[in-house]
Amino acid sequence: MGGKMDNNRMMSLAALVKARDEGKAGPELMAALCRDAIARKDDRIKAFAHIAEAPSIQTHGPLAGVSIGIKDIIDTFDQPTTYGSPIYEGHRPRVDAAIVDLARRRGATIIGKTATTEFAFFKPAQTVNPHNHAHTPGGSSSGSAAAVAAGMIPAAIGTQTGGSVLRPAAFCGVAGYKPSFRLLPTTGMKHFAPSLDTVGLFAAGVDDVAMLAAMLTGRDLATLPAEQSVDPTKIRVGLYRCGQLEGADPAMREALSKAADRAADVGFDVGEIGEPEAMAQAREAHSIIQDHEAGLACGPDLARFRDQMSSILVQTIERGQAISPSDYDEARRHVKRGRAAARALFGEVDILLTPSAPGAAPLGLATTGDPRFNKLWTLMGTPAINIPGFRDDAGMPLGIQAVARFGQDKLLLSAASTLEKAFKL
Amino acid sequence: MGGKMDNNRMMSLAALVKARDEGKAGPELMAALCRDAIARKDDRIKAFAHIAEAPSIQTHGPLAGVSIGIKDIIDTFDQPTTYGSPIYEGHRPRVDAAIVDLARRRGATIIGKTATTEFAFFKPAQTVNPHNHAHTPGGSSSGSAAAVAAGMIPAAIGTQTGGSVLRPAAFCGVAGYKPSFRLLPTTGMKHFAPSLDTVGLFAAGVDDVAMLAAMLTGRDLATLPAEQSVDPTKIRVGLYRCGQLEGADPAMREALSKAADRAADVGFDVGEIGEPEAMAQAREAHSIIQDHEAGLACGPDLARFRDQMSSILVQTIERGQAISPSDYDEARRHVKRGRAAARALFGEVDILLTPSAPGAAPLGLATTGDPRFNKLWTLMGTPAINIPGFRDDAGMPLGIQAVARFGQDKLLLSAASTLEKAFKL
Repeated sequence: MGGKMDNNRMMSLAALVKARDEGKAGPELMAALCRDAIARKDDRIKAFAHIAEAPSIQTHGPLAGVSIGIKDIIDTFDQPTTYGSPIYEGHRPRVDAAIVDLARRRGATIIGKTATTEFAFFKPAQTVNPHNHAHTPGGSSSGSAAAVAAGMIPAAIGTQTGGSVLRPAAFCGVAGYKPSFRLLPTTGMKHFAPSLDTVGLFAAGVDDVAMLAAMLTGRDLATLPAEQSVDPTKIRVGLYRCGQLEGADPAMREALSKAADRAADVGFDVGEIGEPEAMAQAREAHSIIQDHEAGLACGPDLARFRDQMSSILVQTIERGQAISPSDYDEARRHVKRGRAAARALFGEVDILLTPSAPGAAPLGLATTGDPRFNKLWTLMGTPAINIPGFRDDAGMPLGIQAVARFGQDKLLLSAASTLEKAFKL
Repeated sequence: MGGKMDNNRMMSLAALVKARDEGKAGPELMAALCRDAIARKDDRIKAFAHIAEAPSIQTHGPLAGVSIGIKDIIDTFDQPTTYGSPIYEGHRPRVDAAIVDLARRRGATIIGKTATTEFAFFKPAQTVNPHNHAHTPGGSSSGSAAAVAAGMIPAAIGTQTGGSVLRPAAFCGVAGYKPSFRLLPTTGMKHFAPSLDTVGLFAAGVDDVAMLAAMLTGRDLATLPAEQSVDPTKIRVGLYRCGQLEGADPAMREALSKAADRAADVGFDVGEIGEPEAMAQAREAHSIIQDHEAGLACGPDLARFRDQMSSILVQTIERGQAISPSDYDEARRHVKRGRAAARALFGEVDILLTPSAPGAAPLGLATTGDPRFNKLWTLMGTPAINIPGFRDDAGMPLGIQAVARFGQDKLLLSAASTLEKAFKL
């Protein structure tokens, strides 16, 4: 099949856990399945920056036997952590990041480090899109999305500062969930813009990623068993009419329209909702916030290792260091007003639907695509999820993004679970 | 003089910068003064965890020639960083923390690492109080406060999660400034509770610490020249009648009362103001927030190095890991209500005055004292400063804490500058 996806049936976390709990597969076998899949597939997909040589396999905990890939922007004590940069070649943190330790405490196996763009910014990793190897997998959590999409692992952890969870999830056709800000701990990740940096999760489908979130956090976030599902007639779904829509590909606009129709078909209360001006202005503030904070957070790398950084990264950090405190403060005021507008908006609607990206994964590996549909929600701190299901004429995934009010992660995941099934009708 | 302070005249940052700008002292001489003072004094004070062997002395930038001590909870690439813990003995981060890089970019000399309690929690460092070596210097930024108080350096950087800037500043009789949350970057510090961890500054007096803040950030925070000072008659100062006051030492209650009198004498609009119930409840939520977050942020250390951690730290992390998400969420709701109450309160008053600590530095080095007067303001994210000036009958410093609305750092520093002079009348 050349560059096309060949029998890359994804691993469902929910199915694996069910098999385990029914005694049909032990943790050792579950991990062996992943190691075998990685050995067979990763030479071509290049989703992994490092594969654990002898990963610790635990027999207790909700995630026992579940192999998780960790974006290589996140520290692991037992595997190299390079942040996608030659600066950190051979770097071995003394301890895990908080999210990795949490996963281990829940029984997970840390199967390897997944490829990231340099410092989770724009310089691509070597990873290809499992659906067509000539296309980008998206970024910056490139390897996390691709490893799940290629059926190598059932779960992966990534991060988002602009669109680094939603976009690769959309391009690779998997569920990618960016929780409410601070729901998952960021300690031990390489920060880029700390007020935006958010840890997110990848799994095959919505029920899988919700299960992962529930098991990691101990929160009531699961969408299985089916009793956890929502009554669609009580949920207002708004097609979000932001200005970015005009720049989306026709195939994506069609998919979004279909998504709204399917949502209505299964009983959701669907309407259209305009973008408040304050939120449009907040989106424009994203770059100032991100770059100013990157100027601070990555300044130490620039000071010592400028020669080992890409020019786009150097320029961004320098641009950030040149932003005045008053311009940063003004941007933060825009964010504050945008958040107030978002709270008001979520009084009128429960779930917003937008594209996860302007279209399917672009051809080529030189860029990771465009985060224009994601930056606002990172800035708002609202939970967002990529719902897979639609495809373009070439068979490439088209992702629909659902967003809910800050703190309404359970509602978001439940509604997304129902929507995902509706999209497949 | 035995354990008493012997000629420990403090170094004023403002005076040093003035001398430099007038051509009376070059950066080399300024740094040499500090190195000499450290060599003479630190054997007894033990403020430094590490002294730079050949610190880089810069000739350009607003902080050229200014020697800064960095709390050893904050990363430095050119000096060991041990976080006050044997776990990190010999640890050499690849890059500086953001605040250290910022200081270097402004021309500062990183003269050494100042002693911290273990992980900036409660297990004391070896540092003694320069005013009486039998007393604690406070913590967790023990060395930062003591090094400034002993006249070894003009400026130091610390951190506060409960009361770790205000308390040691009060016990050592220096200005300690905790800015509004996120005003100074935390990337590259060892996090304990990320939603609380705040980088703060130490200098001899209020004008010095304001100058340091202005030079580091490029923000309009300076209180010198005198034209920057405020018109007291336009500033409402409220003596904050929180429940904690009853537990304060008589000497401290007397100092606070004197502080209010002096403020009124110089023209401030002084009154008393009660503590809103929502803020009292928020204070009670501090431990749940801190411990839950420490359970996540320090869980990775516990998992690997339990044997090398103090029992108080192990217990706190384990208690934190046992806190349920719903209890944490409830605590966060209390914080949210407390912040709303604080915003309302700062509609009625501009500056609150409270003790920085229940009294002067307690006798003994086994504990670092009590953060009960500081935790609320860390939780609120409001700027706070210790104003030195008062002393008890034994000559030990008594610190008055001033607090302003979130983002009103300039107002706080300007008012504190005027108050500090009034306290000396």
